[in-house]
Amino acid sequence: MRILILTPILVRGDTGRPPEMPLAPDVELSYRALDRGSASIESYYDEYVGAMDMVEKALEAGKEGFDAIVIDCFMNPMMEGLRELLDIPVVGAGEAALHVASMLGDNFSIIDPDPPHRTYSHRVAAAAGLLHKLRSVRYLNLGVAGVLGDFETVLGRMVEEAVKAVEEDGAHVVVFGCTGMRPFAEKLAKKMEDYGVPVVEPITAAVNVAEALVRLRLRHSKVSYPKPTEKKRVF
Amino acid sequence: MRILILTPILVRGDTGRPPEMPLAPDVELSYRALDRGSASIESYYDEYVGAMDMVEKALEAGKEGFDAIVIDCFMNPMMEGLRELLDIPVVGAGEAALHVASMLGDNFSIIDPDPPHRTYSHRVAAAAGLLHKLRSVRYLNLGVAGVLGDFETVLGRMVEEAVKAVEEDGAHVVVFGCTGMRPFAEKLAKKMEDYGVPVVEPITAAVNVAEALVRLRLRHSKVSYPKPTEKKRVF
Amino acid sequence: MRILILTPILVRGDTGRPPEMPLAPDVELSYRALDRGSASIESYYDEYVGAMDMVEKALEAGKEGFDAIVIDCFMNPMMEGLRELLDIPVVGAGEAALHVASMLGDNFSIIDPDPPHRTYSHRVAAAAGLLHKLRSVRYLNLGVAGVLGDFETVLGRMVEEAVKAVEEDGAHVVVFGCTGMRPFAEKLAKKMEDYGVPVVEPITAAVNVAEALVRLRLRHSKVSYPKPTEKKRVF
Amino acid sequence: MRILILTPILVRGDTGRPPEMPLAPDVELSYRALDRGSASIESYYDEYVGAMDMVEKALEAGKEGFDAIVIDCFMNPMMEGLRELLDIPVVGAGEAALHVASMLGDNFSIIDPDPPHRTYSHRVAAAAGLLHKLRSVRYLNLGVAGVLGDFETVLGRMVEEAVKAVEEDGAHVVVFGCTGMRPFAEKLAKKMEDYGVPVVEPITAAVNVAEALVRLRLRHSKVSYPKPTEKKRVF
Amino acid sequence: MRILILTPILVRGDTGRPPEMPLAPDVELSYRALDRGSASIESYYDEYVGAMDMVEKALEAGKEGFDAIVIDCFMNPMMEGLRELLDIPVVGAGEAALHVASMLGDNFSIIDPDPPHRTYSHRVAAAAGLLHKLRSVRYLNLGVAGVLGDFETVLGRMVEEAVKAVEEDGAHVVVFGCTGMRPFAEKLAKKMEDYGVPVVEPITAAVNVAEALVRLRLRHSKVSYPKPTEKKRVF
Amino acid sequence: MRILILTPILVRGDTGRPPEMPLAPDVELSYRALDRGSASIESYYDEYVGAMDMVEKALEAGKEGFDAIVIDCFMNPMMEGLRELLDIPVVGAGEAALHVASMLGDNFSIIDPDPPHRTYSHRVAAAAGLLHKLRSVRYLNLGVAGVLGDFETVLGRMVEEAVKAVEEDGAHVVVFGCTGMRPFAEKLAKKMEDYGVPVVEPITAAVNVAEALVRLRLRHSKVSYPKPTEKKRVF
Repeated sequence: MRILILTPILVRGDTGRPPEMPLAPDVELSYRALDRGSASIESYYDEYVGAMDMVEKALEAGKEGFDAIVIDCFMNPMMEGLRELLDIPVVGAGEAALHVASMLGDNFSIIDPDPPHRTYSHRVAAAAGLLHKLRSVRYLNLGVAGVLGDFETVLGRMVEEAVKAVEEDGAHVVVFGCTGMRPFAEKLAKKMEDYGVPVVEPITAAVNVAEALVRLRLRHSKVSYPKPTEKKRVF
Repeated sequence: MRILILTPILVRGDTGRPPEMPLAPDVELSYRALDRGSASIESYYDEYVGAMDMVEKALEAGKEGFDAIVIDCFMNPMMEGLRELLDIPVVGAGEAALHVASMLGDNFSIIDPDPPHRTYSHRVAAAAGLLHKLRSVRYLNLGVAGVLGDFETVLGRMVEEAVKAVEEDGAHVVVFGCTGMRPFAEKLAKKMEDYGVPVVEPITAAVNVAEALVRLRLRHSKVSYPKPTEKKRVF
Repeated sequence: MRILILTPILVRGDTGRPPEMPLAPDVELSYRALDRGSASIESYYDEYVGAMDMVEKALEAGKEGFDAIVIDCFMNPMMEGLRELLDIPVVGAGEAALHVASMLGDNFSIIDPDPPHRTYSHRVAAAAGLLHKLRSVRYLNLGVAGVLGDFETVLGRMVEEAVKAVEEDGAHVVVFGCTGMRPFAEKLAKKMEDYGVPVVEPITAAVNVAEALVRLRLRHSKVSYPKPTEKKRVF
Repeated sequence: MRILILTPILVRGDTGRPPEMPLAPDVELSYRALDRGSASIESYYDEYVGAMDMVEKALEAGKEGFDAIVIDCFMNPMMEGLRELLDIPVVGAGEAALHVASMLGDNFSIIDPDPPHRTYSHRVAAAAGLLHKLRSVRYLNLGVAGVLGDFETVLGRMVEEAVKAVEEDGAHVVVFGCTGMRPFAEKLAKKMEDYGVPVVEPITAAVNVAEALVRLRLRHSKVSYPKPTEKKRVF
Repeated sequence: MRILILTPILVRGDTGRPPEMPLAPDVELSYRALDRGSASIESYYDEYVGAMDMVEKALEAGKEGFDAIVIDCFMNPMMEGLRELLDIPVVGAGEAALHVASMLGDNFSIIDPDPPHRTYSHRVAAAAGLLHKLRSVRYLNLGVAGVLGDFETVLGRMVEEAVKAVEEDGAHVVVFGCTGMRPFAEKLAKKMEDYGVPVVEPITAAVNVAEALVRLRLRHSKVSYPKPTEKKRVF
Repeated sequence: MRILILTPILVRGDTGRPPEMPLAPDVELSYRALDRGSASIESYYDEYVGAMDMVEKALEAGKEGFDAIVIDCFMNPMMEGLRELLDIPVVGAGEAALHVASMLGDNFSIIDPDPPHRTYSHRVAAAAGLLHKLRSVRYLNLGVAGVLGDFETVLGRMVEEAVKAVEEDGAHVVVFGCTGMRPFAEKLAKKMEDYGVPVVEPITAAVNVAEALVRLRLRHSKVSYPKPTEKKRVF
C-alpha cells in the first residue's frame, strides 16, 4: 500500500522525507511539497496561492498509482477539490485528527499556534461536524514559524497550554492544531500521561486513517464529491 | 457609493453590465468577470481555477476606491480570502441571501440547479450558521448551464419545485440557489405571492446588504479575517 | 421611501426626531413614541403595557403609506404581531443587528445594560436563530435608565466591557444590546478599531435593513405571520 | 393546595368549571376566563388583546392565596410576564406537556388544529428547548373553532393524523397542540394504545406539573424572571 | 397510589425507609435497595454489577402492583431496561430533576460530588436532551462517600459551589447531581433564596413526577422501549 | 499486534473464528463469545444479561496481553465500562463505523434490521455525537435473527432499502446497523458503486480503527473513563 503525504506549502525543514512514524509493514510512505504556493498556511489567501499546484501534484499521484493521499495541514486545504478529482481516499490531517480524538474521550481541546481568538481551529472542527466536542482552543501565540523556534521553549509553552486546557477548561483529549508541531508529540504525550489525557498528532492520525480506508476498500462518496464536469477553463 | 459585482467565472450572458436592479440613487454599480477561471462554479475545483484571478481583480478594485465588493455566486467562493486581503466589505451572494431570508420568515427552502441530493446548498447554509433554518433543498436537476435554456421551460421547473417546497416541505420563504437564476426572479416572486411566500434573489440581496454595510461604515472583523502576513510565496 | 421608527415606550430624550444617521438620499425617516406604555422595556410586563398602543400606531402608519416600520428596541417587542397585521416590512432592531453582526465575523458579544446574568440578550439571539454565534454577554449593570447617566462614565464602562469581550471572551464583533446606547456608538466603534472589531448599533442597522427590504420589494412571509382572522375581541 | 386554571381567552364552552381530571385529594382546582381579550388564540395579536386582563386576573389570584397558576393554552401566552409579577409557580400548558412527553419517549409529534405549515407548534417546542424532540407537526386544518365541531368527525381527523404521525413520521409520543382538544383525549389515548404510543393532553399535564412544583416548594428563578421595577407606566 | 423508590446500590444510611418528603395524601412510598450490586454508583462498572438484581427487584415490584418505580440515582442506571420490561412508569431521578429544573428557569448548573472535569453530569443532561440548558457543572471533589462526611463542612462546600455557579457561571437554577445529597437540600435551598435561585433535589423531584404520570395514566412509549422478545438467555 | 473481537452474545454462526477481513500483516485477530448472556442484542435488557461475563472476558483479554478489544455489536454494549476497567483501546463497532462514515461524505443513512421507527440507531449516532450526520434510518423489519434467513431474500431487502436511502432520503454513505449483516457487505458495496455511495460495515471498520489506535499508541482518556475505585461489591 502506497500513501502519499502531500504538503500544501513550499518547504518544510524535513522536506523530501516523510516524518518518522509507526506503520503497518505493508505501507510505503512518500512525501511531496509544492513548487508554487505559500511558505506556510496561516490564511485563506495562503491556501489559494498553492491550490493549482496541489491539484497538479495530486493528479500525478493518482496516475502513479498511490492508494491514498494525506493532506499535511490541520486546515485540510483543497481536501474537497482533491476528493472530487481523484478516485482514491484523500484524508485531511485536521479532519482525521478530530475524529480520532472524538473516539478517545468526551471532548477535546486544540493547541493552536496562532495568536489568541483566531477561529481557524473552530472552523476545522465545525467543518468536520465536531464543534460540539471542542472544549477550548488554547493559543500558543507563536505563529506557524514560531513553532520552529527553540525546542525547549516551544515545548514549555505547549505543556503550559495543554495543562491549562485540562485543568482550567476540562479537556479530556488534546489535539495538535498544526502538523508542524509533530516533533513535540511524544514529549507532550509523555507529559500528559500524568493526567490520563491522550495527545493526538494530526499527520500520524491521518496516515493511519488513510491506511484503514484503503484496507477497507472505501472511497469518498461521489454524491458528496462529484467528479467535475468538462467545461471551458482558462488557466 | 461604488459597489463592484465580481463574478468568479469567465463569462455570463450579460457580461460587462451589472444586472438591472432597484438601487439607492447614490449607488453606482459595476460588474467584472474573470479572465482566468472556470465557465461556471459547480465544484470546488471550479473555484480553485479562478482563485488567483479573483484575488487580483479584487485587489485592483480596492485600489480603485470601490466601497464594497459583491461576489456573484451563491457558493461565496473566495469570500474569506478577499475579506482578509481588503479593507472594504466583501459580501457573498449566498450568505447575504440566507440572512435576508432568515429575517423574512421562520424557515427557507433553496431552489438548487443541481442534480438531486447534492449538498452544496446545505454547505452554504451551514457556513452561514443558518442550517437550522433550511427546510429543504429542491433540485432543478438542470445544472448551471441548463438554467440558461428555454425560459418558459426553466421557469416552469422553478415554479413546480417552489410550490412543492411550500406545499410538501412547509417552506415559508424561497431562496434561489444560483445567481444565474436571476432572470426568473420577478416571475417566480409574482407566482409565489398567492402563497404569501417571498422569493429571495441572491445577487440583488447581496448588493443591498453591501450598501447597508457601507452606509453603516462597517467592515469585516479583522479577528475573523486577519490580514495575511508577508512571507515567501511562489506564483 | 418612508420608514417609521416606532419606539415601544413612552418617551425618549430625543423624542419627536429620529436619531441622526447616514441614509440613502431617497429615504425619509420618521419617529413616533407611545402614549400608553412603559417608560422603558426591562421586562415582559413592560412590553404588555404598551402592546395595544403599539398596534394602533403601527396600523395608522400602514394606512399613512409608510414603506416599513422599525421597532426601536433590542428586544423586538410586538414584532410578530405587527408582522401579522401589516403588509409592509416590520424590522426589529435586535433581530436586524444580530444578522448584520453575523455577516461581519465568526461570532459576536452583546453589551447589555442589565445586571449580570440576565438572559434577555440570549433570548433575542435564540429567537433570531443565532444563539450559536453569541460568544458572551457583557453586563453594564446600569439598567436602561443608567445608560442615560454621565456620558464619559457610561462610555468608560462600555469600553471596559467591550475590551473584556474581545480579550477575555474572544468576541470578533460587538453589538449594543439596547437602542438607548446609540449616542455611544461612534466613540466605541473608534476605540474598537484598534482591535479590528466592528461595533453594530441596532437602530441604524435596522433602518438600513428595512431600506434593503423595501428596495428588494420583500415582505414577511404570510405563512410565518398569517393575517389574524376576524373573531370576537373585547378591548 | 389551590390551583387556578387561567384561560387567556374570553369564553370556552365549559366556562366557570375547571375541566374534569384526576387530582390529588388535597388539590382544589378553580377556573377563570378573561373579560377583555380574544375569543381564541390563533395569532400573536390575539394574545396582545388579552394581555393586560390576564395580568390583572393573575395578580388577583396571587392576592387570593392561590398556590399556582396554570395557563390554559398550548401557546403559553403571557407566561413570562406572569412569572415576573408573581411569587407562585406559573405553568404553561404547552411547556408542561412537552416536558412530560419528553420523559415518556425518544420523540413526540404534535397534533395541531391549524392549517398546514404554520409554525406555532415549532415555536412552542423551541421556546421550551425541546425542538430536537419534535418529530413532526400534524395539522388538523380545522382551526381552534373547528375543533368544537362534530365530535366524531373531529375525533376521526385526530386519529387519522395521530396514526400518520406514528406510522409515517415515526412519532413515539403524541401531544395535543391545543387545550381545546381536551374532550378527545381519552378516546385518542385508547386508540393509540394499539401502537404503544402515549397521548399527552396539555391542561391535565400542566395541572399535575403545577401540583408537583407546589409540593416541592419550588418557584421560578428570579434571575430568569426578575420582578419588574417601579417606573412610569401609562395604561 | 404506591410508588417504589428503588436504589441501584447495596445500602444507604437510611436503608429501609424512604426519605422524608412532602407527598399527596394518597401516595404511599416504599423503598428498597439491592442485595447484589455496588456500594455506590461512580462508574459504568458499578452499574453493571447491580444490573440483574435491579431487574429482579423491579419485576417483583411490578407483580406486587406498584404504580410506579423511581430510580434513586442521578445517573438513571438501568432506566431503559426497566422501562422495556415493565408496564408502569419508571422515572429516573436525574432525568426528572433536569426536566423540572428546565421548567423553572432559562438554564441550570449541577453540583456534582465528583472530582473536577468528570462528565457524568454532562452525559445525564445529554441523555435527557437538555445539554443546551446546562450552564456549568460545579465539582465538590468529595466523591459519593465524601458527601456523607461532616455535615457542616459538606454543606459549606455545596454553598460555595452553588454561589459560584450563580455568580461566576450565571446559573439560574441549581440541581443536585447525586441523590445522596438530599439531606442538604432544605439548607441549600434556604441559602439560595437570597439569589432568587431554586434548588432541585432529584429524588423528591422524581417521586413527584412519578405521581403525576400515574395520575395522568401515562406510561412510557413502547416504541421507545419495546418489550424484550423471548430468546435464549443464559444467566 | 493482537486484537480481540469480543461478541456480547452467546453464539454466532461463525463462532470461534473471527470474520474474514483484510488485515495488516502484523495484526493477529481473535474472536470470543459469551458463556452467559443473550442470544442477540435487541434491547437494553439483552445487554444487562451479558454484562458481567463481558467484563470478565475483557479483563482476561487484558491480562493475556491483547493490544485492543473490539466490541462486536453496533450498539456498543458495555463499551464505557470496559474502557474504565482496561488500559488498552476498546473500540465499539457502531461508534467506529459512524466516524469512518463521517469521513467519507456529508451524511449517512443506517440500514437497521429492526421494525420501523425503533430509535436504537439514532441513539448510537447521538452517543457518538454524530446525530446531525444521520440522514435517515431504513428498517429491514427482519430482526437480528431474520438477517440470518435466506441470503438472496435478505440481500434483496438490503439493496431495496439502501437504494431508497440514496434516492429518497439523499444518503451519501450507507452504514450497516448490525454486525450480523457482515456477510452481505461486499455484495451491497458492489451494488451501491453505481450510485457512488460507499457502504461501511461496522466490524471491519472497528478492527481497522483499533489497529490505528494501537499503532498510534493512543488509549482512551482516563478523565472520560476513570478507573473504578475499590469499594464493597456483592456479585
